[in-house]
Amino acid sequence: MNVVVTGWPRAEASAVDALAAFGVATVHEAAGRTGYLGPGIRPGWPGCRAGGTAVTALCWPGDNLMVHAAVEQCRPGDLLVVTTTSPSADGAFGELLATSLAQRGVRGLVTTGGVRDLAALADMGFPVFSAAISAQGTVKATAGAVNVPVSIGGQRVAPGDAIVADDDGVVVVPRTAVTGVLAAAAARAQKEEAARASFAAGELGLDRYGLRAVLAAQGVTYLDYESYLSKLAEL
Amino acid sequence: MNVVVTGWPRAEASAVDALAAFGVATVHEAAGRTGYLGPGIRPGWPGCRAGGTAVTALCWPGDNLMVHAAVEQCRPGDLLVVTTTSPSADGAFGELLATSLAQRGVRGLVTTGGVRDLAALADMGFPVFSAAISAQGTVKATAGAVNVPVSIGGQRVAPGDAIVADDDGVVVVPRTAVTGVLAAAAARAQKEEAARASFAAGELGLDRYGLRAVLAAQGVTYLDYESYLSKLAEL
Amino acid sequence: MNVVVTGWPRAEASAVDALAAFGVATVHEAAGRTGYLGPGIRPGWPGCRAGGTAVTALCWPGDNLMVHAAVEQCRPGDLLVVTTTSPSADGAFGELLATSLAQRGVRGLVTTGGVRDLAALADMGFPVFSAAISAQGTVKATAGAVNVPVSIGGQRVAPGDAIVADDDGVVVVPRTAVTGVLAAAAARAQKEEAARASFAAGELGLDRYGLRAVLAAQGVTYLDYESYLSKLAEL
Amino acid sequence: MNVVVTGWPRAEASAVDALAAFGVATVHEAAGRTGYLGPGIRPGWPGCRAGGTAVTALCWPGDNLMVHAAVEQCRPGDLLVVTTTSPSADGAFGELLATSLAQRGVRGLVTTGGVRDLAALADMGFPVFSAAISAQGTVKATAGAVNVPVSIGGQRVAPGDAIVADDDGVVVVPRTAVTGVLAAAAARAQKEEAARASFAAGELGLDRYGLRAVLAAQGVTYLDYESYLSKLAEL
Amino acid sequence: MNVVVTGWPRAEASAVDALAAFGVATVHEAAGRTGYLGPGIRPGWPGCRAGGTAVTALCWPGDNLMVHAAVEQCRPGDLLVVTTTSPSADGAFGELLATSLAQRGVRGLVTTGGVRDLAALADMGFPVFSAAISAQGTVKATAGAVNVPVSIGGQRVAPGDAIVADDDGVVVVPRTAVTGVLAAAAARAQKEEAARASFAAGELGLDRYGLRAVLAAQGVTYLDYESYLSKLAEL
Amino acid sequence: MNVVVTGWPRAEASAVDALAAFGVATVHEAAGRTGYLGPGIRPGWPGCRAGGTAVTALCWPGDNLMVHAAVEQCRPGDLLVVTTTSPSADGAFGELLATSLAQRGVRGLVTTGGVRDLAALADMGFPVFSAAISAQGTVKATAGAVNVPVSIGGQRVAPGDAIVADDDGVVVVPRTAVTGVLAAAAARAQKEEAARASFAAGELGLDRYGLRAVLAAQGVTYLDYESYLSKLAEL
Repeated sequence: MNVVVTGWPRAEASAVDALAAFGVATVHEAAGRTGYLGPGIRPGWPGCRAGGTAVTALCWPGDNLMVHAAVEQCRPGDLLVVTTTSPSADGAFGELLATSLAQRGVRGLVTTGGVRDLAALADMGFPVFSAAISAQGTVKATAGAVNVPVSIGGQRVAPGDAIVADDDGVVVVPRTAVTGVLAAAAARAQKEEAARASFAAGELGLDRYGLRAVLAAQGVTYLDYESYLSKLAEL
Repeated sequence: MNVVVTGWPRAEASAVDALAAFGVATVHEAAGRTGYLGPGIRPGWPGCRAGGTAVTALCWPGDNLMVHAAVEQCRPGDLLVVTTTSPSADGAFGELLATSLAQRGVRGLVTTGGVRDLAALADMGFPVFSAAISAQGTVKATAGAVNVPVSIGGQRVAPGDAIVADDDGVVVVPRTAVTGVLAAAAARAQKEEAARASFAAGELGLDRYGLRAVLAAQGVTYLDYESYLSKLAEL
Repeated sequence: MNVVVTGWPRAEASAVDALAAFGVATVHEAAGRTGYLGPGIRPGWPGCRAGGTAVTALCWPGDNLMVHAAVEQCRPGDLLVVTTTSPSADGAFGELLATSLAQRGVRGLVTTGGVRDLAALADMGFPVFSAAISAQGTVKATAGAVNVPVSIGGQRVAPGDAIVADDDGVVVVPRTAVTGVLAAAAARAQKEEAARASFAAGELGLDRYGLRAVLAAQGVTYLDYESYLSKLAEL
Repeated sequence: MNVVVTGWPRAEASAVDALAAFGVATVHEAAGRTGYLGPGIRPGWPGCRAGGTAVTALCWPGDNLMVHAAVEQCRPGDLLVVTTTSPSADGAFGELLATSLAQRGVRGLVTTGGVRDLAALADMGFPVFSAAISAQGTVKATAGAVNVPVSIGGQRVAPGDAIVADDDGVVVVPRTAVTGVLAAAAARAQKEEAARASFAAGELGLDRYGLRAVLAAQGVTYLDYESYLSKLAEL
Repeated sequence: MNVVVTGWPRAEASAVDALAAFGVATVHEAAGRTGYLGPGIRPGWPGCRAGGTAVTALCWPGDNLMVHAAVEQCRPGDLLVVTTTSPSADGAFGELLATSLAQRGVRGLVTTGGVRDLAALADMGFPVFSAAISAQGTVKATAGAVNVPVSIGGQRVAPGDAIVADDDGVVVVPRTAVTGVLAAAAARAQKEEAARASFAAGELGLDRYGLRAVLAAQGVTYLDYESYLSKLAEL
Repeated sequence: MNVVVTGWPRAEASAVDALAAFGVATVHEAAGRTGYLGPGIRPGWPGCRAGGTAVTALCWPGDNLMVHAAVEQCRPGDLLVVTTTSPSADGAFGELLATSLAQRGVRGLVTTGGVRDLAALADMGFPVFSAAISAQGTVKATAGAVNVPVSIGGQRVAPGDAIVADDDGVVVVPRTAVTGVLAAAAARAQKEEAARASFAAGELGLDRYGLRAVLAAQGVTYLDYESYLSKLAEL
C-alpha cells in the first residue's frame, strides 16, 4: 500500500526518555532479549545516542521521496526510522534533511541504508544510526509508505514505538510494552549495580549465577595441564 | 601491460584544491552523481580529509612492489590510489611509505586494500582511506602497473584525475571535467545554503522540491490511523 | 572435549610487555608474518591497546557460560580470548564481565564474537577487540571449553601464548617463540627507525630495497605518456 | 514470549496450491511487489519448489529445540518456516526432521539458517530453502517460540500465511490477502502470456510499456558513436 | 550522461565465437590475466555458457528502464551486460526480456544485479550470468545510459568488446585486442594440451615449470617428519 | 617456516574410507560436533564427494607455488588441502593440477580459495570443494609451506588427518581419533536408522528425545490462538 498514515498513537514521551536513559543493552534485556535491530546498524560517531518515538518511512532503493513525506509527519520527540524495499546503501539522508528534522524537534535518524554529510551531522549534533555511510545520491521518483510497520533485523518497528539508540546499536520497544519494559529496566539496573559491586569485590559469576552446577550438569571436567596432555596423547 | 607511465597531465592544482573544499557529497552531486568509489572505502579516522591528483598503482594481491614504483612518480599535490588485480585486504601501506609520500608533498592515500600502522599514520596526520585495516604484511615479488587507468567501485580513475576524500568516502572527477564540476559545485553549494536556511525556518522538502505532485502522481494516499486499521481489517 | 584446563604455562610476563610495546604490525613482521588474527577483529575505540598472556574460552553460539568459567582461570597479566564453535556476533561480553576481569588484573578481551556496553567499557578503560558490537544477550546453557587451543583467522592461539592488540588488530605469538620474536622485533624496530630517517630525507624504497632490479626482472617498462597512448592505439 | 500457539487459522489449502502454481516471481508482483524474503534464501537443489501454509519456529542460535516443538503443530499442507533470534548458519534441520514432517504431510522447509543431509533430502524429494548448508550440529537447550509472527528479509511471516518457494526464492502472502493476490496473479499471468507472444514476435518493451516517453521525459538522448566521441573530447 | 549511444563498432563475430570456444580461464590467461569480472558473477545453472559482443546498460538501483532501452540496440551476436550505479540485487531481468533478446539473436545476459524466472530461463536455454537470483521486481522510472563503457570487478567493459562466459564466470576482451588474444589463446591451448599429456604421464609441475629453483631461491627447505618435530620442540 | 615436511604418518586408509561412507554430518556428530570446516566451503557440483588423508599446502594469496610443491608429496589415498596466509579467491587450482593429482591416486581437493576449469574438473570426475570458483590466475613467486598444520574455519587440519567431504561440506578428523570416531559413527548411524523408522511411523522428536520436559523447564507455555490474541491485547 502506497500510503502515508497520520495520527498514530505514540508511546508516552516521558516514558521513552526514561527508557533511553537506561541504554540499549539494558532495555533489550528488560524486554526479554527482544527488539535489537542487529549489529549492522552503527552510530555515526562514538558517543552518539538518542531516544524517541518512531515515525517510519519505507523507500524504494536509491530513492528518498518517502523520507521527505515522512518529515512532515514528525513531531517533537519523534525519531525517524528509514528502510528500503530491498537492500540499498545509498546516502538517502544528509545535512539538509537533518536541518528539517532538527527544526521539528526530532531526536535522530535510524536507517538500514546510508547517510552522507557525516561531518556536518556531527557538527550539528544530530544523531544518526545507519548501516552505511555513502555520498551516493538518490532520486525522488518512486512511491513507498510512511508510518506503516516495517521490519529491521527480524524485529517489527511500528509507528509510535519507542526507539533507543547508542554505541551498542538500536532497540525497539512496542508502544504498549513501554511501561512494563521501563519497570523491568529499572529493576535490572538495580540488580546490575549490585552485581557490579560484588564483581568489583572479587565474587565470580560462576558463584553469583550458580553456574558451577550448570557446568557439572553439562559434563564439564577440570583437568590440570599435565593430565590434559596425557589425555591428548592417548587419542 | 606491466608498465610505469610517466608524465601524465594532471588536473590543475588550484582547481583540485577548490574542489576538495566542497567535500565529497557536493562534488559527487555536482558531477551528476558519478565518481563515488562506494561505501566500502572509509577514512582511517574521523575527520580525515584530503584532495589531490591521482597517481595510480595496480598491484598483485599480497604484494606492494608497485606501490614503491608509484612513490617515485608522485609530485607535490598528488594523491596515491592503490588497487589490486583481485581483492586483498593485506596491509600493503604503512608508516614508512607514508613518510616517503609526505616527504614528496603527497596529499594522502586511497586503497581498495588495507593499511597498517594506523596509530602512527594518525600521529603523522597523513590521510588514508581504505577498505581494510590490517597488519598483514606483503611481499615485493610480482609486477603490476603504475599510472594506468584503474576501476574502483564501478568508477574509472585515470592518472591526473582529481580525487576528493572525507568522512563520506572518496570521489573521482576526470581531469577534463574538473573545471565544469567546480562551477557546478559552487552553484550547488549556494543552492544548498539557501535550502538550509529555508529548512531551518520550517519549510518542507515536500514543498521546496514540488514533491506533493510526485506523491499524488504515484498514487500515494493519506489515511488517518483509524481508516488505516479499517483498511487492514478488510483484507 | 568439555574441559577446563588449569595450570597452563604462560609466556614470561616481562617479555610479553616488551613485545606489546612494539605494536601489532612490528610483532607480526618479527614473527615471520605469522600470527595475525585478520582485519575482522577491531578495537572497541581508536587508540585501544593491550598485551597479555592468553586464557581461551570456546563457547557455543549465543551462549557465554564458558566465559564465566574462564574468568576464574585468569591471573594478573592475562588477556581473555573468546571464540565460538560457529560464527556468532552476539554480545557475549559486557561491563559486568569486564569488572570481574579488571578486578583480577586482566589486560583486555579479544573475541571473534560481539561485545556490548561499549560506552561503559571505554569509560572503564578496559580494552576490547571484537568482530562485532551487539547488544544481543546470550544464555548460559551449553558447555564448551576453557584453556584449550583455538583457531582464529587461520592462526592457532594456545593458552599462555602472548597476545598483542592495537589499532592494527590482534597478533598471537606462541609461548615458546616469545623470546626469539622479541629479539627480532627489536632488530626490526631499529631497522625501521633507520628507514624512516632515510625516507624522510628523500631516499626511495625502490633504491633502499633494491627494487629496480626486481621491476626489470619482472619485465616492467617505463613509458612516457605519449608513447603509452600510441601503444594503446596500436592494440 | 516463550509460547507455542495452537490453532492459528490457515489460508485455504486449495487457494495456496493455486498460488504456488504461478511461481514466486508472479506471486510477488501480484502482491504489489511485497513479501519476497530476499535473494539470500536459496533452494536446496535446482528445480526444488513448494507451497504451503506457514507454521513458524523462532529458535535460539545453535539450537533447534523449537523446531521439534513446531513439528507437532504441523498439519498436512503446512510448510515449516524457521528463523533464529540472531543470525546462525548451523544445520538445525536434516533428514530425521524431514522424515517427521513428510510423515505429517508437510510441504517443505524455509529457514534463515542452515540445513544438512542435503543429499538425503534431495533423495527423499523433501523441498528445503535455506540461507546456508551446514553440517554443524545444534543443541536442544534454549526456549523460543512456535507460531508467533516472525520477520525475514523485512517481511512479516505470520502462522497460517501462504508460502510459495521455487528457484527464484521464497514469497509470503498474508492469509487474508490470498484470495486477492490469487486473482491478481491470474490476471498477471494472462498479461504476461500476451507480452511473451508479442515480444517473441519482435515488439519491444519500449513500445509495449510506453517507455519512449519516459526516456524523453528523463532527458535521455540518442547519440551516434561519432557524436559521442566528439562530446567526450569536448569535456 | 543520460545517453543511448548507437552504432558502436563491434568485435568481429567469428573471432568472438572462436574466442568463446576456448572458455573463460584460457581467454583470461591469454589476455595476460586481465578482464575477469570476478567470482561474484555466476552462471544461472551448471553448464551455462555464452559468447558475444557487449551491449551495455547502466541502470539505477531497483530500476530496469535502461534494460528496455538496451534491447533495441542489440543485434544478432550481441550479449547484454547490465550494471547499476550502486549495488542492487533486484531481479531486473526475467523471462519476458529474455524472450525479446532471443528474438533478436542475442547470446545471453551478464549482470552485476539479479535475474528472476530462473526456471523459465533454463527451459528457454537463454544463458544468464548474475551476482544474484531475486524475484524482487523493479520500476521503470529513472534514467541511466546504454552503450557507454562500464566497470565491473575492476575491469572496463566497452560496447562492442568480446564477452566470454561459462562455469568459471565471465571475461571481457577489448574489441581491439580480440585478434591478439585469440592467437594467444590458441597457443596457450596447445601448450596446455602438451602439459596435460605430460602430467597424465606423471611429470610434475615442479619440473615442467622449473619450480625447484624457485623454491630453493625462496629458502624453502625439506624436512622429514622427525626433524620437523625436533625443530618445533626447540622453539 | 618455509618448509616442505615429508613422511607424515597418515590415518589408516581403510578406516578413512569407512569414515567417508558415513558422510560429513554423521562424522561431525560422531566426533563430538567438532571438525566441520564451515558452510563457506562448497562442492564443485551437486553430489561431489570424497574422502582421503590430508596433505596440506599453505600459499601466499594470488600464488600457487606451494600447490605444485604439495603435489609431489601426495600418495594414493591422499586429499590435498590448500589455504592461504590471507583470504584469496583466486583460481589457484584447475584442470592441469587435477590431472597430476589424479595420476597420483589423489582423492580430491579442498581449498579456502578458488578453483577454475570447473566444467573440465566435473568431466574428469575429480572432486573439488572450495570457497570460490574463479578464473583469476595465480603466480608462482612466493614461498609458503607444505605439510604443516593449518587452520580452516576454526578447525586444525594436520597432515595425515582424515578428510571427508560431500554436499554438506568438509569435516576433518585428527589422525589419532579416526578409530574412535569410526566406532562412534557406526553407533550413531544405527541410532539414526532406528530414529528414522520411528519418525516415519509418526513418533515425535519431542517424545523420543524427552524434550517436553525441556520445554517445561524453560517455561514454554502452550496457548490457543484466542488466548494468544488476548494476551497481546493486554500488553
